[in-house]
Amino acid sequence: MACRSDPLPIAVLVSGAGTNLQALIDTVHGREAQIVAVASSKAGVPALGRAEAAGVPSAVFARSDHPDRGARDRALAAWLADRGARLIVLAGYMELLGEQDFLARFPGAVINVHPSLLPAFPGLHAVEQALAYGVKVFGVTVHLVDAGLDSGPVIAQRAIELPGARDPEDVLAALHPIEHELLAQTVRLFARGALRPDPESPRRILVDG
Amino acid sequence: MACRSDPLPIAVLVSGAGTNLQALIDTVHGREAQIVAVASSKAGVPALGRAEAAGVPSAVFARSDHPDRGARDRALAAWLADRGARLIVLAGYMELLGEQDFLARFPGAVINVHPSLLPAFPGLHAVEQALAYGVKVFGVTVHLVDAGLDSGPVIAQRAIELPGARDPEDVLAALHPIEHELLAQTVRLFARGALRPDPESPRRILVDG
Repeated sequence: MACRSDPLPIAVLVSGAGTNLQALIDTVHGREAQIVAVASSKAGVPALGRAEAAGVPSAVFARSDHPDRGARDRALAAWLADRGARLIVLAGYMELLGEQDFLARFPGAVINVHPSLLPAFPGLHAVEQALAYGVKVFGVTVHLVDAGLDSGPVIAQRAIELPGARDPEDVLAALHPIEHELLAQTVRLFARGALRPDPESPRRILVDG
Repeated sequence: MACRSDPLPIAVLVSGAGTNLQALIDTVHGREAQIVAVASSKAGVPALGRAEAAGVPSAVFARSDHPDRGARDRALAAWLADRGARLIVLAGYMELLGEQDFLARFPGAVINVHPSLLPAFPGLHAVEQALAYGVKVFGVTVHLVDAGLDSGPVIAQRAIELPGARDPEDVLAALHPIEHELLAQTVRLFARGALRPDPESPRRILVDG
């Protein structure tokens, strides 16, 4: 038998439906990774039900429950660290995370999935932005999170040609399976320790093997 | 036999090797389109030899031969109009064209091919920009030319995944066949009169049929 390492303990941050969370539960959870915590920025969202159904501990860290964003970030980071998370996956998480209060606690280990081919169309409503621009190719990016808006180094991207697209819902429906696949693939690469920055060009992420 | 319209008279603007010009000569010239003029911003470039070999009239409109850019633009536009060109294809043309002095003479009929998925990486050295950003997906855009830098409405795009790319020459070698194909395809759509702006979103170009 091949030698297998322990699953990578990961946390998933959500704000809503949690379809990317579900995809991770269905693909890597209990295999290459173990989802040890789900944190939501909002109470009562479907993502929390998905965590419960999978037996994953979850908690709500709403901004309004804390004196300021920094306090929220620190509380969230402390809970995730307590749970042993070594990779933090933002999956439809709609809040910014502070550099000192959160990101520095998990260096090089916070990732996000974004429904555009970054650096095109960062921020909210990426698909609507792309449609207004009139692009013919859409796509998905998984990237490391830095203090900027969807500006961190790219880990994985995939494109899809939709030359006749006019409706954001149609585009999102085409992108969702790609998001699920790229996220699962990226978690597997982290679990294998296969990602590293290119020493010649530190924004470029190399995949070993 | 099917009814065929006359070939669309097109002009190609070049500055160097002319590989996109050659692709148009090899694909649409004498079929859906007739290349009636090749204009270069530089004397002595290989593109001029390609025009000559194809029996296409060519001329050099160097900036230094004219009092200013506007005068160059007007002379160039006048020559192209005299030759009967109804579509102007920028194929590796390295100069900006003025709104009043050039573009207004050929409304909605000046197109450019650019080696990125616009709006990402406009301007010079697009592939180098993309490599420095660390993208995993590269691509090509054919777009209408407006007064901005690679900012006009998108006509066609195609993506290619090159997750391990590090050398600009390798990326350009992968993009060149895509440039050739998208340019030829776009010229055919113009010849068929198949392109029109979406009335609901004027930057979006619709393809009929």
